[in-house]
Amino acid sequence: MENTLNSAESCPDSVLPANSGSPRHNSLSRAEGKAVGFVLVHAGAGYHSESKAKEYKHVCKRACQKAVDRLKAGAQAVEAVTAALIELEDSPFTNAGMGSNLNLLGEIECDASIMDGKTLHYGAVGALSGIKNPVLVARRLLSEAQKGKLSAGRIPPCFLVGKGAQQWAAGHGIPPCPSERMATKFSMSAYRRNKRKMELAEKVETERCQVKRGRQSNDSDLGALGKVKAIMADEEENDAACLDTVGAIVVDQEGNVAAAVSSGGLAMKHPGRVGQAALFGCGCWAQNSCNANPYSTAVSTSGCGEHLMRTMLARECSAALQAEDAHQALLEAMQTKFIRSPFLASEDCVLGGVIVLRCCRCVETSSDIQALLVEFLWSHTTESMCVGYMSAQDSKAKTHISRLPPGAVAGQSLAIEGGVCRLGSKSE
Amino acid sequence: MENTLNSAESCPDSVLPANSGSPRHNSLSRAEGKAVGFVLVHAGAGYHSESKAKEYKHVCKRACQKAVDRLKAGAQAVEAVTAALIELEDSPFTNAGMGSNLNLLGEIECDASIMDGKTLHYGAVGALSGIKNPVLVARRLLSEAQKGKLSAGRIPPCFLVGKGAQQWAAGHGIPPCPSERMATKFSMSAYRRNKRKMELAEKVETERCQVKRGRQSNDSDLGALGKVKAIMADEEENDAACLDTVGAIVVDQEGNVAAAVSSGGLAMKHPGRVGQAALFGCGCWAQNSCNANPYSTAVSTSGCGEHLMRTMLARECSAALQAEDAHQALLEAMQTKFIRSPFLASEDCVLGGVIVLRCCRCVETSSDIQALLVEFLWSHTTESMCVGYMSAQDSKAKTHISRLPPGAVAGQSLAIEGGVCRLGSKSE
Repeated sequence: MENTLNSAESCPDSVLPANSGSPRHNSLSRAEGKAVGFVLVHAGAGYHSESKAKEYKHVCKRACQKAVDRLKAGAQAVEAVTAALIELEDSPFTNAGMGSNLNLLGEIECDASIMDGKTLHYGAVGALSGIKNPVLVARRLLSEAQKGKLSAGRIPPCFLVGKGAQQWAAGHGIPPCPSERMATKFSMSAYRRNKRKMELAEKVETERCQVKRGRQSNDSDLGALGKVKAIMADEEENDAACLDTVGAIVVDQEGNVAAAVSSGGLAMKHPGRVGQAALFGCGCWAQNSCNANPYSTAVSTSGCGEHLMRTMLARECSAALQAEDAHQALLEAMQTKFIRSPFLASEDCVLGGVIVLRCCRCVETSSDIQALLVEFLWSHTTESMCVGYMSAQDSKAKTHISRLPPGAVAGQSLAIEGGVCRLGSKSE
Repeated sequence: MENTLNSAESCPDSVLPANSGSPRHNSLSRAEGKAVGFVLVHAGAGYHSESKAKEYKHVCKRACQKAVDRLKAGAQAVEAVTAALIELEDSPFTNAGMGSNLNLLGEIECDASIMDGKTLHYGAVGALSGIKNPVLVARRLLSEAQKGKLSAGRIPPCFLVGKGAQQWAAGHGIPPCPSERMATKFSMSAYRRNKRKMELAEKVETERCQVKRGRQSNDSDLGALGKVKAIMADEEENDAACLDTVGAIVVDQEGNVAAAVSSGGLAMKHPGRVGQAALFGCGCWAQNSCNANPYSTAVSTSGCGEHLMRTMLARECSAALQAEDAHQALLEAMQTKFIRSPFLASEDCVLGGVIVLRCCRCVETSSDIQALLVEFLWSHTTESMCVGYMSAQDSKAKTHISRLPPGAVAGQSLAIEGGVCRLGSKSE
């Protein structure tokens, strides 16, 4: 497979022109191969410290391998994307499944969804506790819905939440997992740290109110306020890794696409809070090509759930990718539909990231061989985003931690990178 | 205010031409008035029996009045739309709040959402039990999110589900309501009927399997199967009113739009199932005009939640309404984005309905008076849809049960009707 692009661009007021001098994937050399299928995964858009970079890359590598194993065994995209997600959820380092962020009450509640680009079916769970792999429940909802109506003409659900989702999973043979087994040392220490931070923040707020109310402030008051602020700033650094939703997108040997996403949600979220990972159009999107759309597209998002929901970023990126130049289309989508979205006008810091792919069939005129051309990209407004990718012809996955360029402001700037991969068709 | 249109059109393969001879709202006479603001409500797309028509109309009338009362008192669209929803939820005849459909376990779990076209903020609850007016929780989530971040920089939730949503409501002063008080005689007898129907359906299925497996069928076997089928057909009629989600859309004196929707969900749904009424882009949509969009638009949907979710019908209709001819745009959206949507390719019967409005400022050149021109429409593929509408200058609301034309097939055809209303501006 080819090299990836490594162009990190800040977000200017005006959109970059199509030929802005940055390396573009259509200028890349294309490797060929017989085995077909491709997977791109992410271990979240957020902040990935150098110290944990190895772990993040490692889980992305394993997730890619799992998906490729399934693809090589002839599985369709939906199955392969599920295999990747299970691996990502099982890692204690990611904020999904095992090791998810804890909510305000110290519990784990997960969101996940999956979409099949061939049938356009979608399955999702929200605020689900006690299941090791939430994506398995989403996947099962999708496949049950594809079977058609239930008894007495009832329409099967595609989105289940909370206790009901847990019961449905049990009724469909998905084993429960005690919540305490899903929490990790890391998630529990983060919870305690966050709790302390909240208490400090509330103390600062109280101090501020007292000062505002005209109470005689003295040196000791202001000293306490300053001290609390300093502690909070110190806490900030430990806390930045709270957005590591995971996801994957796949194209299989038939050219079908699928996408999935899974998240433990924001740290210290209110119980019952559902984020973008469960929401149709927000967490993931997959749509095979059709008359109206020349490209099959797949997208998975990560970041602040509320920002991704209100901008429906997965669907917006999918729609944008029908334009001629994928890199330029994604750049514009991230700028106009996310950073400067009218839906987030009141936000000064818009945090998120996406992985996308699009593919189409092409015929090599010299050899008359039909192939799948896969263009893939990632983009994020967060400090960093960890990705991995692999085609079925690769011996191992490539992984990368993309970072904003020096001096770029998270939430206001973006990085965008990607590559292209040519896959031989099944009949080759 | 003017008369409404009464054109019911079946859904042909080709889209009706813009001048197909049906009455169109731009040919209607327009009444003028000083008080400003307009509300359109629905008590569901489903089947409204003649015997209950009076009740449905009555609740729509009261809901319109409540919204107009708020508008006259100077309230903004979001407040007025909430007032209409509370009235609709409180009726024991609608499938929302009080009298909601019961789920498989005989419990009530409600979905609701609200959107403010001015700020584009959205609040939603899913699978919420024990709260008389789910829309109040959605409304409160919206207003809390508009206040900005929580302590320690936490992002406020916009979508809560289940027990967590119930706890959040309690913490924000919204009183609980015992579930048994929310069930009605009607909802409980429907539950018993549906339960019987499911048992019969499962019996039929067992019989069918036995016959398929080659077991010697005899007259008594086939007789039993026929009998069961006959009972089921008989049950069908009682059961058709299960889609009566409620909703409202409002434009206020400033020209702000808002939309809301509330639903008890499908009868006999799995616990934890969330339908379109909770989902961003699916249950309701409101968006004030901006540079890119000349019209402010508001939409509320009703019908089969899974169909409305997978087609994102509220958002699709809103986008379509930016076209020149609102009637034609909605007709096309209902045909191409719903009945023939690629997302519902496997469904032979696509059930849903929408109410929509769009408005823009216009200046009467003769008098130099600025006014708001409101175009409003409803369309449904279900047997019927009950709507009510009222402007702040009307003495009472108009209500109407729209029905498919004779011979039209529910789920494959549609009815579309609407009107236009000219509102004097605040400064008039």
